[in-house]
Parts: sequence; structure tokens; C-alpha cells
Amino acid sequence: MKLTILINCPDQAGIISSVTNFIHTRGGNIVYIDQYVDKESATFFMRLESEFSNTLTLTEFTDEFKTSLAALYQMQWEVHKEITVPKMAIFVSKYDHCLYDLLSRYSSGELDVEIPLIISNHEKAESIATQFKIPFYHIPVTKTTKKEAEEKQLALLAEYKVDFIVLARYMQIVSQTVIDQYPNKIINIHHSFLPAFAGAKPYHAAYKRGVKIIGATSHYVTADLDEGPIIEQDVATVSHTHSINDLIAKGRDLEKIVLARGIKLHIERKTMVFNNKTIVFI
Amino acid sequence: MKLTILINCPDQAGIISSVTNFIHTRGGNIVYIDQYVDKESATFFMRLESEFSNTLTLTEFTDEFKTSLAALYQMQWEVHKEITVPKMAIFVSKYDHCLYDLLSRYSSGELDVEIPLIISNHEKAESIATQFKIPFYHIPVTKTTKKEAEEKQLALLAEYKVDFIVLARYMQIVSQTVIDQYPNKIINIHHSFLPAFAGAKPYHAAYKRGVKIIGATSHYVTADLDEGPIIEQDVATVSHTHSINDLIAKGRDLEKIVLARGIKLHIERKTMVFNNKTIVFI
Amino acid sequence: MKLTILINCPDQAGIISSVTNFIHTRGGNIVYIDQYVDKESATFFMRLESEFSNTLTLTEFTDEFKTSLAALYQMQWEVHKEITVPKMAIFVSKYDHCLYDLLSRYSSGELDVEIPLIISNHEKAESIATQFKIPFYHIPVTKTTKKEAEEKQLALLAEYKVDFIVLARYMQIVSQTVIDQYPNKIINIHHSFLPAFAGAKPYHAAYKRGVKIIGATSHYVTADLDEGPIIEQDVATVSHTHSINDLIAKGRDLEKIVLARGIKLHIERKTMVFNNKTIVFI
Amino acid sequence: MKLTILINCPDQAGIISSVTNFIHTRGGNIVYIDQYVDKESATFFMRLESEFSNTLTLTEFTDEFKTSLAALYQMQWEVHKEITVPKMAIFVSKYDHCLYDLLSRYSSGELDVEIPLIISNHEKAESIATQFKIPFYHIPVTKTTKKEAEEKQLALLAEYKVDFIVLARYMQIVSQTVIDQYPNKIINIHHSFLPAFAGAKPYHAAYKRGVKIIGATSHYVTADLDEGPIIEQDVATVSHTHSINDLIAKGRDLEKIVLARGIKLHIERKTMVFNNKTIVFI
Repeated sequence: MKLTILINCPDQAGIISSVTNFIHTRGGNIVYIDQYVDKESATFFMRLESEFSNTLTLTEFTDEFKTSLAALYQMQWEVHKEITVPKMAIFVSKYDHCLYDLLSRYSSGELDVEIPLIISNHEKAESIATQFKIPFYHIPVTKTTKKEAEEKQLALLAEYKVDFIVLARYMQIVSQTVIDQYPNKIINIHHSFLPAFAGAKPYHAAYKRGVKIIGATSHYVTADLDEGPIIEQDVATVSHTHSINDLIAKGRDLEKIVLARGIKLHIERKTMVFNNKTIVFI
Repeated sequence: MKLTILINCPDQAGIISSVTNFIHTRGGNIVYIDQYVDKESATFFMRLESEFSNTLTLTEFTDEFKTSLAALYQMQWEVHKEITVPKMAIFVSKYDHCLYDLLSRYSSGELDVEIPLIISNHEKAESIATQFKIPFYHIPVTKTTKKEAEEKQLALLAEYKVDFIVLARYMQIVSQTVIDQYPNKIINIHHSFLPAFAGAKPYHAAYKRGVKIIGATSHYVTADLDEGPIIEQDVATVSHTHSINDLIAKGRDLEKIVLARGIKLHIERKTMVFNNKTIVFI
Repeated sequence: MKLTILINCPDQAGIISSVTNFIHTRGGNIVYIDQYVDKESATFFMRLESEFSNTLTLTEFTDEFKTSLAALYQMQWEVHKEITVPKMAIFVSKYDHCLYDLLSRYSSGELDVEIPLIISNHEKAESIATQFKIPFYHIPVTKTTKKEAEEKQLALLAEYKVDFIVLARYMQIVSQTVIDQYPNKIINIHHSFLPAFAGAKPYHAAYKRGVKIIGATSHYVTADLDEGPIIEQDVATVSHTHSINDLIAKGRDLEKIVLARGIKLHIERKTMVFNNKTIVFI
Repeated sequence: MKLTILINCPDQAGIISSVTNFIHTRGGNIVYIDQYVDKESATFFMRLESEFSNTLTLTEFTDEFKTSLAALYQMQWEVHKEITVPKMAIFVSKYDHCLYDLLSRYSSGELDVEIPLIISNHEKAESIATQFKIPFYHIPVTKTTKKEAEEKQLALLAEYKVDFIVLARYMQIVSQTVIDQYPNKIINIHHSFLPAFAGAKPYHAAYKRGVKIIGATSHYVTADLDEGPIIEQDVATVSHTHSINDLIAKGRDLEKIVLARGIKLHIERKTMVFNNKTIVFI
């Protein structure tokens, strides 16, 4: 059994020693350990991977950990068994380059997820979903139908037991109701190096400002649009010769890569969220 | 004689042909040509380098060009003889890494400028100026003395026949009076990837937002703080492990390089400013 | 009519003026001009894009240019009418990430080519070809059948009137016979920053050497393996924590992007080959 | 007291738990822990930083650690007290940009070292050493005087109690005798992305090959020229327009940064060498 353990708690001396000792005495071999202390808030964060070759079960580990260390150090914590493959829903609108990219990675075995469904407010992506044999749901969203549309979305997400959601250039604002059900479990790709050019039409804004680099940002979705915890960013150089369309074209590769990287970090339980920032253990 | 010619004018057919023909018939050999059309405003930009092995003088070239092509096409244009080494003033405050970097590049012959003087609102940089044998002027700036200080600065800039000014982490706002006398001739380094984190303390703001990249921007100074035409930008990756001080340290290398690159482009007459953006012919 | 003209010839004064004048007097408006002189060999290179709104035909332009300027300056030159969409054959073996990437770009309209066929020495890619509705030919290659296999390949390439070939991780050496028929028209992706780690298993070699960056290179194929003119390169940072499999995974994104960029430059007639190097007019 | 502890030993279960427990029971608070296992050789590596607010001395810690854990797990290990500032000798030849850069960083307090001396086989750098008030020794090296020159160097290094040596573009081969006395304590900057373009004149070779990226590599010096463990690498994009001199100029910034980064990692005891590769704990 291989476990990945994520911990955060008020910082104090002895946590590392206690946790590693706990694991060692249960027969676990620690194959990864990384830790971080946020000094302003005196909060301790740790990520461990541990292999158990004995008969210990996840339930036993969880029970013992909860009643001993977790209680002692007031930990917020989670533990994941390696074998669990998360279920990822994809939301998409008209731009399909990120969708294609994710499905290609999925098909070639690069992304260790199940993709139980694709939801779109447009019909355009249906043929791509069909091509990759993923169930597709067309749920149009208008001002008047937004609430109803979200109920449909939530019903589908529940039905398919979705673990997390990827907004692969989904051009609708996700409401508080959905966010509350999937806290730090909705990953969006924004087509700028945030906080520059938040909001609509970032490539147009970048062109107007005459920047020499453009970027993309994958982040967890929160109630404040484009203000959620940043997971990953990357940039590319541009020049005065690039038209808005050139920026859009060049940005597509950034978006694909930055979104895929963000998703991989999430799948591998390498991200923790604190104070609207991510701690990314790599 | 080697000339560098910069032109902008309303776009129309035939300009390239006319200009290259003009140069050819005066015995010039074009060794560089690049052009750009801003489609929104239908404005044409061109940069040429041309070698003349005959007896043509700069004055003759200028006179003929002005009365023929420049008038015909309503050009704004400038011509530079290669031999002219521009005079660059450096303004600096307390942070001296950019100053050191520029003086090192200057000493090793990398920057083809004269540096007639360094002006600072602090005394700290005096020893560095002395070390590199550059005249140093300490002009403190306070709210009440700002106007007087600028008069001193302008007098010195005039006395030393300064061509352009570099703000090498100069922490005072340059007023409209100075900008008006040196339009598109004041280069600032801002320690963020603008337009993100304009204003004071960008590393603190970057830390707070939890970005995964930090950057630096060199730009021409205009009346709107940190809003001038961007010449050059670069970025570096950071993570949650970087404290604000780490960001500051990592950012220093970016600032040095991005400022030096911006200055070089300016010295080599490779930049043109239009619509608050730069066209950079490389 | 929009023409793209590529020229190279012995360098001498007056070429730019002559060519731009030739185009102007035929009613062409030059919308792009870039030139380069290789000083060692005194060779001049130029790329122009020109729009003609009159009734001039490609044949007329070609005939006049050939008998006047091309002859006068001993030019090697080519002219392309914008409307011609090139036909690109894809060769692939077992690794399909580049194939998926190219087909996704093709499907979404990003790559302005026709893809008349995919050829593979393995059967694995057939389902992907089917998925994207591209004819697929399985041509196994063994030592004894190599010659025969290449004849089949060449017959198919001729039948489909293929303009250029992309080796999207095709793990067979392409023989001189094929190269001779498609000079500077076969683009390969090599999974290292050449000239480092030429030959087989570059990620293994990179791991063994302990490099801190890995790369990918797209280049035209010549008789010398991995020694052809480089079109495009890019790199990514790695660390001691990356296993060989991690390097392979991280490299996939580089390979996809570097190959796609190389292909785009080729399609847009932005590359010229000289002295086993590329001149890339961007 | 703050200690940095570096450990490597045969991998087995329980090491992390034992070491963290050892530190905790001596009253240490672990503020940094990172570990790595080389799977091929089953070797375990760990780096810890630990703060002791009690009266434990370095000698006590060392003695106890040696006789308990170090012996038990057959560790190779070292411990450093934070307060020790290492002594760094700089060797330089004619190119002085790295020298200037290091001295600027040193002067501004960015590099936490002492620089007791600069040694050069040329006189050129003397004025720079004087400018920064560092003792300078001119030791010419010819084929016949090489042995004698090295004896002088070694005598000076011993006299000044030098901890490690930086070859800041020192163009002489350092012999086995010197390397043996400073194993993994001589840092060189090579002006290419090794293993590409090892040996002399890498920019010339890069130009000839027509690469689209150039690079720099800082590495520990071993008997095999340019083959030592790589600490840090970085690259920059170039194009056909760059002459050899342009590559040299552009490469200077890479060399400065890559060397400075390598030195910082070494100073902060973040590097471990194994199997001719570095493990860099960041």
C-alpha cells in the first residue's frame, strides 16, 4: 500500500519527528517528504509518500493517525491511497484546443484520470467528445436559464461521482453554488499571466498595452473571478509584429501546457491551498 | 559613412521602393532594412542601415531627403551617423545592483555610451561612482525641494549635454517638466512584469498574490507612472518557498538584464514609439 | 494576388532597390520585407510579401522576374501564391504524442495544410488516423525489406502529390533516395537540444550526464543523422529528482511544440537553407 | 545555533525517522528537510536545517551523531554551522565580465563569502581587483612554467585558507594536483549548454552548427575537461542574424548568471555530488 499524506497545522517543534516516527513504527518506508512553514501565520505544511509492505489497511492508518497525531497537533489532513484514479469532468465552450490537448493526453495514457463526461454550453465540441468516446452533455446557459443549467450540471457531476472539474476555456462564470460543492476542486485556465489582464479579452488588452511577453495561468476557481490560488504559470515572448490573432495563436500552446501541468499537480496531490495561494510540493 | 534611418508616415504603396531607390541612387548600400505597418492607424514604420563609400555628407543626405521623400510622404524621420556615441545620465537611489551592472558593462566596453554623470537623491552611490571615476551629484529630493532639485538636475543634464536618462532604480517620480524635455528619452526599470504590480513594492504584491513567475520591465517614462511604452520584459519562475526577500534577490538579475537590454536597443536606435507602444526592430 | 518571394544570390549593392522597384512598377504593394547577408560567403537573402490588386498573373510575374532581375543578379529564387495549401505527409512509429498534437492542430484549423496520408512502420497509429479520418498506410520496415518499403513510401508520396514530409517521432532512418527527392522538405523532431545527445536514446543520455535542461530540435533531414539544418529549438529545466521517465514525459511537450513551430515556419515559407543552417525570416 | 546537515548512505527504511528523532531529542527544530533516493545505486541523500535554542555545541552534536546514527547507517555526512562564511578564490584570465559581476554581487552584500584573493595569468584584471580592494596575484602560465605556477597557486590558496575556487573564465586547464586538493570545490563556468560544444571556442561552434539556442553551464571541475558534475545551466534564444560576436555578447549575461547561481548553491551547502552528477536541494 502506498499512501500520500498532506498535513497542515499550527507550526511547532517536533512535528516532522513525530510524523516520521509514527509512520516508521507502523512499518512504513518514507519515499518522499517535503515541508514548508508559512512564517507570517506560523502554519506548518507537509507532504509525505510512504510505502507499507505489511498488512496495515488504510482504515487502520487513518483511525490511528486521527486519534493520535492529528488531534495532538490540531492538523487538517488528508490521506490518499495511490490506486485511486480521480474522476475529472471537463467544461468547455467554443475554443477547443485545450479540450483536444487534454483528450490526447488522456488517450495516450499521460493523464492518470477518468473522464466520465464533458459538459458544454455549445454544441461544437460534441464531435470531439464522440471522437474520443466520452459522454457529452450540451447545457446551454443564458441569463434566464443559468440557475437551471447549473442544477443540471450539479446533477450530472453527482451522478458521475466527479472528483474535480476542469474549465478548459469555459466562457461562463461558475456560480458560488458550484464552487461551494467543489472547493479547490475546480481548475481554470486563464489566458494571461495573472494578475495582469484579468477578465475578458486578455489578448486584446495585452496587444493594446504593447507587452513583450504573454502568458497563461491555471488556478483554482474562487468566487472572485480570476483571483483564485495560482497553480502554474508560463509565458512566451512576443513583439510589435504580432497581431491580436498572432497572440491568440501563440497563447494556445501556453494555455494547453499550463492547464495540463496544473491538472497533473492536482491529480498527484501535490498542491495545498492556503491564504488564497498554493503550496506546490514537487 | 554609415547611416541609420528611422521613418514613420501614413502608409501607402511605394514607400519602400522610393526610399531604397533614393539611397541607391546616392551610392548607398543598404545593409539592413525592416519595416512594419500598424494596420489600425495605417501607419508605416521603417528602419534602414546604409553604407556610403562616396563623398556624400550627412548634411547633403539630410537636405535632399527632407525636400524630396520626407515631404512627399509626410514623414517623421531621423537619421543617425554611426560614429555618434550618445551621452547617458544615470539616476539612482539606494539599490545599487543596476548601477553596478551598468558601470561594469560600460567599463568592459559592452555599452557604447558615454556616462558623463550620475545623479542620486542619496549619498550611498557616491563611492561606486568614484570607483568607476564618474562625476557624482547628490541632489536630495523632498516634497518641498522637489522643484528646486529638478532644476538642478535639468541644469546638469544640459551642462553635460546628456542625450538620454536611465533610471537605474531611482525611487522618485520624475515630473512632467523633465519628461517634456526628454520625450521617449528616459528609460526606467520597473521590478515587475507590467502591467501586473505597477506602483510601489511589486515584490511584496507578487508574494501576496502567490504568482509563480516574477518579472521586470524596462520602459520609456511618460506622465502616467509605470504606463509608458514597454521596451523589454523578462521573467523568472518562483515558488511558494520564496520569501519576499528571495523574490527581491531573484528579481535583481532580471532587473539588471532587462534594463541593459532596453538601453542597448535605445542606443542602437532600434526602438520607435507609437501609440504608447514600442516598435523594436531587431 | 498575394505573392511570397524568396531570393538568394551573390551579395552586391542595389539588389533591394532593384527588387522593390520591380515590384512597385508592376503595381505590387510590399507588405513584408526582410533580408540577410551571410558575410563569410557574401551571399544575400531576401524574403518579400507583396499584394497585387491589378490583373497581373503569377505566370507574368514569374516570366518577367526571371528574365530581368533573376538573370542579372544570378538569383536562386522561388515565388509562392498565397492560396496554395501544401500537402504534408506524416511518418510515425510507436510514440503518438506528436501525431495527436499535429492532428489536433490540423482539425482545429491551426495548421494550414492538407494531410493526405499517414505512413507508419507500426499498426498502432491506425486507430488515431481513423479517428481523424486520414488515410493510413502500414508499411513495416526491416533490414531486408527497407528498400522495398521505401519504394512503397515514394509511390504513395507521388500518388498523393505530397509537398513535404514530417517525421513525427518516426524511428527509422530515412535513406538518401528519399532525401534526394525531398531536399529540405523532410522535417524531423529530435528529442534533445542538438548537437547534444544526437543519436538514439537522448533522454537516457541526458539523465546519465546529469544536465539541468533538456530540449528538443526540429530540423531538415539530411544524409547525416541529426546533423541537418536546425529550424527551431526549445528547452525545459529539469533536476536530479527527474527519472528517465520523467524526462521523457516532460520532453513530450517540448517535442510537440518545437515540431509544430518548425512546420509552421516551413508552411509559411519563412525558412531558407544555406550552408547546412536555416535562415528564418519571422 | 543553526546547523545544516548533509547525509548520504545506503538506502534503507527508517533513516528519516531516526535522524529527525535524533535532532528532536537534542532540542533541535527542523526548519528544512529534503531527501532523495538514487534508485539505481540504492543510495539515500538528505539535507536538513535545524535550529537549536539550547546550549548544545557543534562538537557535542558532531560527536553524538558520529557514534550513533552515522555509524549505524554507514553515512558519509557533513555538518555546517550557519555562521561560517566560506573563503572563495577567483581565478580569471582576460575576459572580465564574470569577475566584475561577482565583485559587484560581493560588494552589494549579495554573495555571502569572503574573497581573500584573485589570481590571474594575465595582468589585465589587476585594476579591477584594486578597484574592489581585493589582493591580486599575477601568475603567468606557460607550458614550461605550468608546474611552478600551480605550486605558487597552491601556496597562496593554503596561505589564505581558501575553501573553494571559482574559475571565472580562467582559460587554463587546472591540473589533477590542484583538483585533488579541492575535490568538488572548484566551480567553472563553461560558455555552452554542455555536453554540446565542450572544449574551446563554443560560440564559434554554435555559430557554425546554426543552433537556435545558446547556453552556459556551471560545473564542478574534474580531471575530464568540461565533463564534471553540472550545477546549473541556462539558455537564450538566438537566430541566424547573430554573428559570432553577437553570440559572445549575448552569452556573457548567461555566463554571469549561471556562474553566480552555481556559486550561491555551493555556498548555501545545497549541492551534493554523486556519480558525476549533482543533487541540488532547493
